[in-house]
Amino acid sequence: MPLNPDASIEITAFRWVPPGAQGLVKDLRVRWALEEAELNYKVRLIGPERPPGYSNDQPFSQVPCLRDDTVRIFESGAILQYIGEQAEALLPSDPQARFRAIQWTYAAVSSVEPFVQFRALLNVVFADQPWAEPAKPTFEHFARLRLQQLSDDLGDKQWLEGDHFTIGDVMMITVLRIADRSGQLADFPTLAAYVQRGQERPAFKQALGDQLAVFAANEPQPEGAAA
Amino acid sequence: MPLNPDASIEITAFRWVPPGAQGLVKDLRVRWALEEAELNYKVRLIGPERPPGYSNDQPFSQVPCLRDDTVRIFESGAILQYIGEQAEALLPSDPQARFRAIQWTYAAVSSVEPFVQFRALLNVVFADQPWAEPAKPTFEHFARLRLQQLSDDLGDKQWLEGDHFTIGDVMMITVLRIADRSGQLADFPTLAAYVQRGQERPAFKQALGDQLAVFAANEPQPEGAAA
Repeated sequence: MPLNPDASIEITAFRWVPPGAQGLVKDLRVRWALEEAELNYKVRLIGPERPPGYSNDQPFSQVPCLRDDTVRIFESGAILQYIGEQAEALLPSDPQARFRAIQWTYAAVSSVEPFVQFRALLNVVFADQPWAEPAKPTFEHFARLRLQQLSDDLGDKQWLEGDHFTIGDVMMITVLRIADRSGQLADFPTLAAYVQRGQERPAFKQALGDQLAVFAANEPQPEGAAA
Repeated sequence: MPLNPDASIEITAFRWVPPGAQGLVKDLRVRWALEEAELNYKVRLIGPERPPGYSNDQPFSQVPCLRDDTVRIFESGAILQYIGEQAEALLPSDPQARFRAIQWTYAAVSSVEPFVQFRALLNVVFADQPWAEPAKPTFEHFARLRLQQLSDDLGDKQWLEGDHFTIGDVMMITVLRIADRSGQLADFPTLAAYVQRGQERPAFKQALGDQLAVFAANEPQPEGAAA
């Protein structure tokens, strides 16, 4: 059971986020990889105010960071690679297989996530902006283009590189869950099935459950409730 | 001189792009790293139509890809890491230094580039859209936030991790050049000076010159010119 208060690996996560973001916060990627790798970890929870000095750990005030006896790093992609180097299954040592996995990790955060994320934001954070509705067709166009290209590439493969699940799949599936949450996978059954395969992995279920349990335990009390 | 038709490393690049994109296309990142690493390479030029089967090399139809006798990969971040592993100076082998460099490579493409890129697009690709002008304050807000956070973190350091220039700087500086081209660094002298330091490196100058020379050699002929 990876969650362990005595673990040397510590990651940061938010104490609570609104329901629309629950299950999508980026520590999920890292929790999932840690579960796959069977590496013990503990969690340092932070709130919206951020603890003093947190910008030294994460200049952009985001989560997750990871620290242990060897490194102090941020960016979920770099953290997945660090975990992967401790788990041959997630990041093979053969050069071509290794760099293909790394390539997909970058592709997820650089070639897919920005497009589906901005499209998703038009429905939520930007929804009350007068330009949000007229901007949707353009953002929809770019997001759908990338999703179609990814779907074509995936085809009938189980994972991005075939039968072997890697950190590239951890990253791509968590990125596609952003698209899925906002309905962007409705016309992409190949991608929806791929996300589903990822979500059926025991390590994913454990990681998601652990993230959601923190939010449930820190649910803000309604005004007027007893302190 | 790294450009060498007999090199085992081959990258892809566009034969020509409009002036607004010249000097910003992503093969520049890879050319720069190859120059820093003093690794010979050759270039496979592709046009807007893309050669048959190119989606097998790059599912999103972008540049660059890299192939040699060991790997066939795409995504500039993964390629920078591959080059870095052949050049201790660009990607140190010490675990903390190594993962800090990797972290910045991801930070550039995931935490900075999407924000400055979408802000830049409002001035060019999206400029004729009726929603582009009203959307600017929102995109400006997010881009400036990330630039300010990065500027605060950089402070008076020469490079992102101090005195040592890494693949993280290659990626961050090429991302910041997108912001600079669209005027986004006007209020961030720390970042503008950092970009300038990068651009003064001989390897950068060689890489940029080599990219621009291709565009100059393949300038479309005006209509009516002799074939």
